[in-house]
Amino acid sequence: MEFPPITPPDQQAHRTAVARHDQLTKPAGSLGRLEELGVWMAACQGACPPRPFARAQVVVFAGDHGVATQGVSAYPAEVTRQMVGTFLSGGAAVNVLAASAGAAVRVVDMAVDADTDDTPPAVTRHKVRRSSGRIDVEDALSQAEVDAALAAGIATADEEVDRGSDLLIAGDMGIGNTTPSAVLIAALTGTEPVAVAGRGTGIDDAGWMRKTAAIRDALRRARPVVADPVELLRVAGGADLAAMTGFLAQAAVRRTPAVLDGVASGAAAMVAERLAPGARLWWLAGHRSMEPAHDVVLENLELAPVLDLQLRLGEGSGAVAALPLLQMAARVLAEMATFGDAGVSGPAGDVVPAE
Amino acid sequence: MEFPPITPPDQQAHRTAVARHDQLTKPAGSLGRLEELGVWMAACQGACPPRPFARAQVVVFAGDHGVATQGVSAYPAEVTRQMVGTFLSGGAAVNVLAASAGAAVRVVDMAVDADTDDTPPAVTRHKVRRSSGRIDVEDALSQAEVDAALAAGIATADEEVDRGSDLLIAGDMGIGNTTPSAVLIAALTGTEPVAVAGRGTGIDDAGWMRKTAAIRDALRRARPVVADPVELLRVAGGADLAAMTGFLAQAAVRRTPAVLDGVASGAAAMVAERLAPGARLWWLAGHRSMEPAHDVVLENLELAPVLDLQLRLGEGSGAVAALPLLQMAARVLAEMATFGDAGVSGPAGDVVPAE
Repeated sequence: MEFPPITPPDQQAHRTAVARHDQLTKPAGSLGRLEELGVWMAACQGACPPRPFARAQVVVFAGDHGVATQGVSAYPAEVTRQMVGTFLSGGAAVNVLAASAGAAVRVVDMAVDADTDDTPPAVTRHKVRRSSGRIDVEDALSQAEVDAALAAGIATADEEVDRGSDLLIAGDMGIGNTTPSAVLIAALTGTEPVAVAGRGTGIDDAGWMRKTAAIRDALRRARPVVADPVELLRVAGGADLAAMTGFLAQAAVRRTPAVLDGVASGAAAMVAERLAPGARLWWLAGHRSMEPAHDVVLENLELAPVLDLQLRLGEGSGAVAALPLLQMAARVLAEMATFGDAGVSGPAGDVVPAE
Repeated sequence: MEFPPITPPDQQAHRTAVARHDQLTKPAGSLGRLEELGVWMAACQGACPPRPFARAQVVVFAGDHGVATQGVSAYPAEVTRQMVGTFLSGGAAVNVLAASAGAAVRVVDMAVDADTDDTPPAVTRHKVRRSSGRIDVEDALSQAEVDAALAAGIATADEEVDRGSDLLIAGDMGIGNTTPSAVLIAALTGTEPVAVAGRGTGIDDAGWMRKTAAIRDALRRARPVVADPVELLRVAGGADLAAMTGFLAQAAVRRTPAVLDGVASGAAAMVAERLAPGARLWWLAGHRSMEPAHDVVLENLELAPVLDLQLRLGEGSGAVAALPLLQMAARVLAEMATFGDAGVSGPAGDVVPAE
């Protein structure tokens, strides 16, 4: 799997946006992170002022995980299939948040462990298999499966960009998926299992111990292949995580910004950055998740989260929650008066006359 | 100045919202602060699910400060008058953020040190005086002025609630206003000047030393009257801060929620809580400001900020930036499917059939 070299966002638009911020009727830097978000949007769009995103698209990659049989989640695996239905009927959290933020949501079944033939073809077209191998004792995927899953993510990103999506969000749905996510993150950063094992959907102490043991066992299998990102996904990931990896890397290839969510998209992003170095410049961390492994992701990718709302849901929810701030950031650059426009005095006290 | 006793938000609606969150198709608590925001809205509105705010109103209270002549700000005092014009023409940061969030903005001139007779009557109707006394050496206001300013804030809150505003935000505009704000906060909490003196609009080290000295001198005058909140506003506040105090207290009297912004609205809120104990239950901290005194406010009022974006602008900007998250929080309670609706299994694994 080779991605073309990633070119960074437009540095001229970046500089123009930084300079424009100093002309707007506010003390320099006083809008803090909102200024940075606007500058990032300008650079990604190659234009200042940036446009508010007109078509932000969440793609929820759904998949089950063999390791869920080991009692690592508070919920039974059939919830993954049920939630696919809830996404389609618009009743999931990410649907509601996206409706509020003006984003669209679609769901892609990569490896749900159930018959989903009654869902639209767009949901099932890329399905690679049902569930995954138990990563604590066996490989998650075959070579053909991991290749197909990565290709599905790439194809999905291409499809979205080609139809005009100007912001991509990779959401996740899969009972047990924080376990392989934690394994990928720990393997890539040399972190110990106890430091990446979180409470996920809300497991108790006994469940947390089972999860930590599963992470430990899977890490033993994952560490020898950590230098090969695709092999790592094959051994210790899953079809959903592989698809998210391809999706996020291809977003950068297509020079389309993406907002990361929590630990699943974060794990995929870390693998994607290894496959397509520099891709992270096209990503924003929407929030800081409650999952401890997510802090490892943010530090490793050097991304500062926009929100810190103690979310731990996934689905893309934390990324969508940050979207209104991005829209505000763009409008600040586009719509605020400049000192010159407004006849407002600058710090030196010179009144700049209105034009 | 006496406010009627403040009654807390509706506890029955609070409990109903907490219980409803556990029925929605997500792990319990997994939406973190968004769940808390929805519960707070339900309690304030006395109904679950809460409605997204239909008429969020920012009122920017503008006023100059005599202490600005002491070099405590990076900007000249005439900027206050100029920014009143920018608010009216819609070019200020808070206008743009509010347009994006669906909020309305009005500006009330309490003590701008300039002729504002060319602005609409609603802007100038409550004007108490031009600027304020130099609080490092003299009282900010006379007794009649502080009474008039408090009454103006109360009247403005009443007017907004009476015309249907369902969320109030007190914004501030006034060169030098972080100095009296810091004095009020330090006086009410026994904090030292160096711990509340911030960089405001962006002063240099020499300016910071002048500001800290002014705060120290004003504190010497303020501390003896700290037990009397109105006297404190008279000695060390200003007409804009007094109006914001009346506005925020009256919001609680009228059982209307308010979102606090930065250090100016925070200072006013601390005084308002003393005049109307319990009012803080009707307030939300929109964000954590860069001004160090703001951390003192948040701790004193026991309010956890929604956002932490390194903002230091005022105008209500940080409160407005949090508004989309409130709207999302309400819609989550109103629109998400329940486990029963969706036929999704709960943590125990019992499939609840779709109805």
